[in-house]
Amino acid sequence: MVNVSIIGKGNMGQAISSVFSKAGATIQLLGSGDSATAAYGDIIVLAVPYPAIEGIIAERGEQLEGKIIVDITNPLNFETFDSLTVPADSSATAEISKTLPSSRVVKAFNTNFASTIAEGKVGTTPTTVLIAGDDEDAKSQLADLVTAGGLRAIDAGATKRARELEGIGFMQISLAAGEKIAWTGGFGVN
Amino acid sequence: MVNVSIIGKGNMGQAISSVFSKAGATIQLLGSGDSATAAYGDIIVLAVPYPAIEGIIAERGEQLEGKIIVDITNPLNFETFDSLTVPADSSATAEISKTLPSSRVVKAFNTNFASTIAEGKVGTTPTTVLIAGDDEDAKSQLADLVTAGGLRAIDAGATKRARELEGIGFMQISLAAGEKIAWTGGFGVN
Repeated sequence: MVNVSIIGKGNMGQAISSVFSKAGATIQLLGSGDSATAAYGDIIVLAVPYPAIEGIIAERGEQLEGKIIVDITNPLNFETFDSLTVPADSSATAEISKTLPSSRVVKAFNTNFASTIAEGKVGTTPTTVLIAGDDEDAKSQLADLVTAGGLRAIDAGATKRARELEGIGFMQISLAAGEKIAWTGGFGVN
Repeated sequence: MVNVSIIGKGNMGQAISSVFSKAGATIQLLGSGDSATAAYGDIIVLAVPYPAIEGIIAERGEQLEGKIIVDITNPLNFETFDSLTVPADSSATAEISKTLPSSRVVKAFNTNFASTIAEGKVGTTPTTVLIAGDDEDAKSQLADLVTAGGLRAIDAGATKRARELEGIGFMQISLAAGEKIAWTGGFGVN
C-alpha cells in the first residue's frame, strides 16, 4: 500500500486524490488549516499554486526529505497571463529541486486540467499524465500509481524537460483563459 | 484567389501544400534547386529546418518584404535532442522577425506532425493549427486558409507566445524520437 499526502484541497488536489484512491493508495489530504499535521506520505503532492510552495517548504521542510515530491505547478504571472515567473532557462521544478536537495522532485499533472484528471478523458482522448524528473525510480513509482488509477502516464524526460511541460501548461491556460478552448479540454496526447 | 509560395518540398511542405490546395489557393512549391525562381506568394511558408532559414533570407530577402511569412520551425539541436538553439527567452519566430522587419512573420504548424496535417486528425481529434504573431490581419488570413483547407485554427497569441509553441513542438518531437508517441500522433487540441 502506497501512502500519498496531497497538500492542497483545491480542484487539482481533489482530482489527483480521486485517481490515487482508485489506485488503492492511502490518501492524506491536507489543507491550509492543517499545518500542524505532519505529511506522512512516501509520495507528497504539492497541489498548490507556485507562490505557495516556498511557505510549504519553510513549514514542512523536514517532512519532505527523502520523499517523492510531485510538483504540479504552472508558475504563471496570474495578473498578466503573459509570462512565467521563473527564469527563462529554468522551471518551477528545477527551482524547487534546488531548495529540496534531499527530496526526489518530479513534475507531473501540470499539463492536465483538473476535470480531465477526474474524468479520465480530454475530449475523446484518454488523459495522459506527462512526468519529468531526474530520479527514474520516483518517476516509475508515480507512473505506476497514475496507471493503476486509470490514466495513462508517459516519462517525458529529465528535470530539464519540465521547462517544456511548463510551456505546454502555460499555453493551455492561456488558451482557456482566452476562451479558445474549454477548461474541461486542453491538450490530449495521441 | 490567394497565392502561396512554399519553400521546402519535404513532408511538411507537401502536407501544407495539400491543405492550401484544398482551400483553393494557388501554390508555388519551391525546392532547394529553385533558388533562381522568385517566390511570388502573398503568403510565403518557410517549410525548412531552422538552420536553413538564414540562407533563404540571404537569398530571397527582397522577395519576403511586405509578405506574410509563415515560420513552421522547431529550432532543436538535432544532434542531442536535448535543447533549443535559440536564446531561452526568445524563439525562432522572434529571431526571424528581427531579421525581417518589413515582413509580417507568424508562427504556425510547428506543433503539427506532417501526417496529422495531411490526414486532418491527431488520433480521433481534428487537427488544430496554433498560430502566433503580432500582426492580427496576417494571422487572420492564415487562419482563413487553414480552415478553408479543412483544419482547425486557433490564435495562440502574440509573437512572444511562439516560445511556448516551440516548447510544445520540442516536447512532441522528443516524445516521438523516444518512441513514447507515434510520428503520426502528437498533441491534439480539445
